[in-house]
Amino acid sequence: MTRIATTVEDTRAEVADARRRGLAVGFVPTMGALHAGHASLLDFARQETGFVVASIFVNPSQFGPKEDLSRYPRPFENDVELCRQHGVDLIFHPAPEAVYPLNFRTWVEVHGLQDRWEGATRPGHFRGVATVVLKLFNIVQPDIAYFGQKDAQQARVLEQMVHDLNVPVTMRICPTVREADGLALSSRNQYLDVDQRRHAVVLHQCLEAVHARTAQGERAAAVLRDLVAARVAQVPGARLDYVAFVDRATLEPIDHLQGEVLVPLAVFMGSTRLIDNMLLTL
Amino acid sequence: MTRIATTVEDTRAEVADARRRGLAVGFVPTMGALHAGHASLLDFARQETGFVVASIFVNPSQFGPKEDLSRYPRPFENDVELCRQHGVDLIFHPAPEAVYPLNFRTWVEVHGLQDRWEGATRPGHFRGVATVVLKLFNIVQPDIAYFGQKDAQQARVLEQMVHDLNVPVTMRICPTVREADGLALSSRNQYLDVDQRRHAVVLHQCLEAVHARTAQGERAAAVLRDLVAARVAQVPGARLDYVAFVDRATLEPIDHLQGEVLVPLAVFMGSTRLIDNMLLTL
Repeated sequence: MTRIATTVEDTRAEVADARRRGLAVGFVPTMGALHAGHASLLDFARQETGFVVASIFVNPSQFGPKEDLSRYPRPFENDVELCRQHGVDLIFHPAPEAVYPLNFRTWVEVHGLQDRWEGATRPGHFRGVATVVLKLFNIVQPDIAYFGQKDAQQARVLEQMVHDLNVPVTMRICPTVREADGLALSSRNQYLDVDQRRHAVVLHQCLEAVHARTAQGERAAAVLRDLVAARVAQVPGARLDYVAFVDRATLEPIDHLQGEVLVPLAVFMGSTRLIDNMLLTL
Repeated sequence: MTRIATTVEDTRAEVADARRRGLAVGFVPTMGALHAGHASLLDFARQETGFVVASIFVNPSQFGPKEDLSRYPRPFENDVELCRQHGVDLIFHPAPEAVYPLNFRTWVEVHGLQDRWEGATRPGHFRGVATVVLKLFNIVQPDIAYFGQKDAQQARVLEQMVHDLNVPVTMRICPTVREADGLALSSRNQYLDVDQRRHAVVLHQCLEAVHARTAQGERAAAVLRDLVAARVAQVPGARLDYVAFVDRATLEPIDHLQGEVLVPLAVFMGSTRLIDNMLLTL
């Protein structure tokens, strides 16, 4: 049975009860609007742990003032049904004021990793992500937490936070789930109209093209960047926000690709901004 | 028996073992150079919990570039003996590089509370304190942690951090321990020469004078500030850094004293900076 808790106290009581029964606790933090990507994380948690907690909380502090907080989708009943189908034991669904009470003033900052790429486009975004995830970890106190590789920079920021602050949680970064044509699943895909949806495959195609060229021996980031820019420019309604070739650990850009290279990519389809990424081992 | 752990892994193993034995865990974080003030915290922990952990770690990140990190006293053998006498079960004594590995980049900031008073005199100080205490909490995972009211702003910053980040630790703020003449115990008192030591009682005397004047009905912060400034000015070698009259919760200055008022005070005795404080309920 899937139970729903809205308070910190109820959540802790449910988790403590599971612990008393000797169960390991898995945790999947989400903003709701759940799709097969989230389901995949829940399935990993279900396989590895005896008590699966999902949080559904649209975190205001990771949205910028001009971003889509108010129109972010909140199909709560559907989300609960998906959780039920994937064997979630407990949903933590707090009100915003329970997470950010009046006079809230403590923030977690992962310097360096939080500032580039998504962080440059969305100032304060990763501060909001790191802070809310640390809060959720402290509330749920899971053994293992599950995140998607789709949000590669988020995963890296959170891994660093967990490492630096000695947070007693094991991090699992799980593969990106894609539509048949290669589009990475995202709650924001539902903002796309039919034409945008069809053209959105360009993100995956760009990454595939980069992969093909590196397999042929190309190592110059500038060449690969031009390749992506040219491809995106051909697509109606698409506008490249950034593509980068970065060290997987530091997220610092590299000119000549070698070792473990992360390729993050962000493209506007109309007013909707989509991200994707690929990890290359060269 | 008092055991000493230098690694995160050993510390967690010892604490986990205590938990398996059903013991509540008390924690007293210190920078060593232990005195009767620390001993009092250890005694509180000993009374309330079944397994007492003390950390001894001179935290570099809470010292400014011009501060006394290198000359800060480190009488480790004496500290261990004091811990033993006060029934400490485990001392966590890590190397700096175990706490701050290469590429450490995550910081906890308690905005507002961290910036004034001690924070203004010592930029970055409370960021360092909040970050290391959160790390130590994550390493030890105590039920109850003990801090001294002597460092009133530190206590307030940490209480706020624990509250805001849902840290599952109960905070106990314990009374300041004083010498017979009223001087608050501090590891920095040993920097004082004989004359400075004698004159250092001025901090306590100033706070007593403030208390007496408020008991007579004085409520104007400006009048009380002048009283303190005049008293410190009379003492050879003493220089007032700041005295303030602040809301206990927000640490914001107030002109007309009412409710719970914290009076933090910082005075240089020669090159040694001493702090003290008093809580007034009006």
